[in-house]
Amino acid sequence: MENKRVRKFQVLLIGDSAEFEYNNIVAYEIGAFIAKKNWVLITGGRSGVMRSACKGAIDNNGLTVSIIPDSNIESSNEYSSIVIATGIGFARNYTNALSCDIAVVVGGGAGTLSEITYLWLADKPIIACSFVPGVSKEYAGKNIDYRKNSPIIDAKNIDEVFYNMELIAQKLI
Amino acid sequence: MENKRVRKFQVLLIGDSAEFEYNNIVAYEIGAFIAKKNWVLITGGRSGVMRSACKGAIDNNGLTVSIIPDSNIESSNEYSSIVIATGIGFARNYTNALSCDIAVVVGGGAGTLSEITYLWLADKPIIACSFVPGVSKEYAGKNIDYRKNSPIIDAKNIDEVFYNMELIAQKLI
Amino acid sequence: MENKRVRKFQVLLIGDSAEFEYNNIVAYEIGAFIAKKNWVLITGGRSGVMRSACKGAIDNNGLTVSIIPDSNIESSNEYSSIVIATGIGFARNYTNALSCDIAVVVGGGAGTLSEITYLWLADKPIIACSFVPGVSKEYAGKNIDYRKNSPIIDAKNIDEVFYNMELIAQKLI
Amino acid sequence: MENKRVRKFQVLLIGDSAEFEYNNIVAYEIGAFIAKKNWVLITGGRSGVMRSACKGAIDNNGLTVSIIPDSNIESSNEYSSIVIATGIGFARNYTNALSCDIAVVVGGGAGTLSEITYLWLADKPIIACSFVPGVSKEYAGKNIDYRKNSPIIDAKNIDEVFYNMELIAQKLI
Repeated sequence: MENKRVRKFQVLLIGDSAEFEYNNIVAYEIGAFIAKKNWVLITGGRSGVMRSACKGAIDNNGLTVSIIPDSNIESSNEYSSIVIATGIGFARNYTNALSCDIAVVVGGGAGTLSEITYLWLADKPIIACSFVPGVSKEYAGKNIDYRKNSPIIDAKNIDEVFYNMELIAQKLI
Repeated sequence: MENKRVRKFQVLLIGDSAEFEYNNIVAYEIGAFIAKKNWVLITGGRSGVMRSACKGAIDNNGLTVSIIPDSNIESSNEYSSIVIATGIGFARNYTNALSCDIAVVVGGGAGTLSEITYLWLADKPIIACSFVPGVSKEYAGKNIDYRKNSPIIDAKNIDEVFYNMELIAQKLI
Repeated sequence: MENKRVRKFQVLLIGDSAEFEYNNIVAYEIGAFIAKKNWVLITGGRSGVMRSACKGAIDNNGLTVSIIPDSNIESSNEYSSIVIATGIGFARNYTNALSCDIAVVVGGGAGTLSEITYLWLADKPIIACSFVPGVSKEYAGKNIDYRKNSPIIDAKNIDEVFYNMELIAQKLI
Repeated sequence: MENKRVRKFQVLLIGDSAEFEYNNIVAYEIGAFIAKKNWVLITGGRSGVMRSACKGAIDNNGLTVSIIPDSNIESSNEYSSIVIATGIGFARNYTNALSCDIAVVVGGGAGTLSEITYLWLADKPIIACSFVPGVSKEYAGKNIDYRKNSPIIDAKNIDEVFYNMELIAQKLI
């Protein structure tokens, strides 16, 4: 499909907006990896792992898209190349899920879980970091419901995150 | 607050749109109970427990509001007194969660779980039927994340659903 | 269709949230009329004509549904029987338009015009009060674009509003 | 603000999805101009002027973001570098309006007018091509309502579109 030739591979990174040092380091490395692959990093544009992943990508000349709940285009984190100001509050979690080829989960709470449920309904590949506490650890390797999707991929360390992203990208691009 | 005197008590019932006979019977009884209390039943307006609960309410002269993902006001189930055609797809799960005073979960899969995560973020009281297989059984009595909300209420039979709805209504109305 | 037997006739009233005494009086009378016909009044749940129409309906034992942009169910006007807290900001104008059988415009500015465009796209009957300044006066009798919809109905006084609502209701109910 | 240094200047181009040869040529040239300036082109990702503007940008090594109503990331036009699959139907017109620094209108009908009303409410600069029939011609030079925004800029030829985009960009970047 010609679309594929122009459209970049879009990777969504999700997790909590609270600041946890370890989670942020992991997110930074994943953002950097995405940039080096010349993929696009999509996040919710807020703080915590979203900001750290964006910084990782920008530090490596990457492209970051921040899909924010707010209506003010200036209210995203400062490492956003492009800001989508949805204005629809946390209904934007639905848009986040639909707007990726693949998702990576780093920690997270209820908001992150809402995104996972939407990713599951859309049958998108999900890689969850089981080495990071929170939703990513709890749901790694599991199914969300009775649907016959592939289970959420359990990445036990950051190399397994990279390896699985590459593997899926090779199939989809 | 004067608002409270006019506004009716709004109970959201969620669960799967697939048809499971037992789940549907439970939903019917809860819909009937809500109608007898003169509360408003809110559902996603589709089939399965949503339709059954609406039928239970309508059979008892109740009022049902169907908040549907579609843009066509005629595409809800046939027991809907009022239809809100959101047009926003499953982003309407966010609206469902915000538009209730209390929620009851009867079975359910990933879509239902997305609604539970939004209910949790909004700190709404959630009653989950642990006697019905699916999301309601899995999450009854649990917390969704680290937030200090009250845990999801575990209703072990239908009388515990009624009892807990009454208890919360007395506090909130 | 069986749906029609249960579902009530849903009338959307739109206009500005600012307080203009004349507009508010007109809106009150339309709300009262809708209540007396046993139809449901739908508004955006805010101040100005929305609040006045709701008061008119409630004073006549009517049923009012407030579809608000906010995420807080308690933030609608105090004459709301049922509140739909969409949480999606002014994207809720789309939901308002889709959730009615017919719309009445009383004054209004850009927000009201956005609702008219969505009503037009959904080909819903629109009655505009040309005797009230603002968007309702400007667009009464006009087409919004090249689509072959019926033009916006020009109601030159409140009796013409009532007459046209009745006429359309007879066709649709 | 540090944000400004990373974030690219985002230009929204709106108009009809129907295919009008003249409108499409104009849109192509504007897309090409945006790409040469190293700005980001944002459109609704569909056919007509949206597709033509995207082609103009891609042919000039530009970056295009398609914010689509659908839930399927593959359903945008084939000249989309990045696709935001909102899944929220035409409520995405609100997101389009909020996600730009400046908007250019090329023709258009009711859908385009809904975007103009949202742009107006957000007080974004709007350039309307009065040399293209449709909404852009009708509303060029006008105010949408009583708000004290600057009127919609009337661009009488394509050079005036370019000139005004540059002028505003110099103020905002």
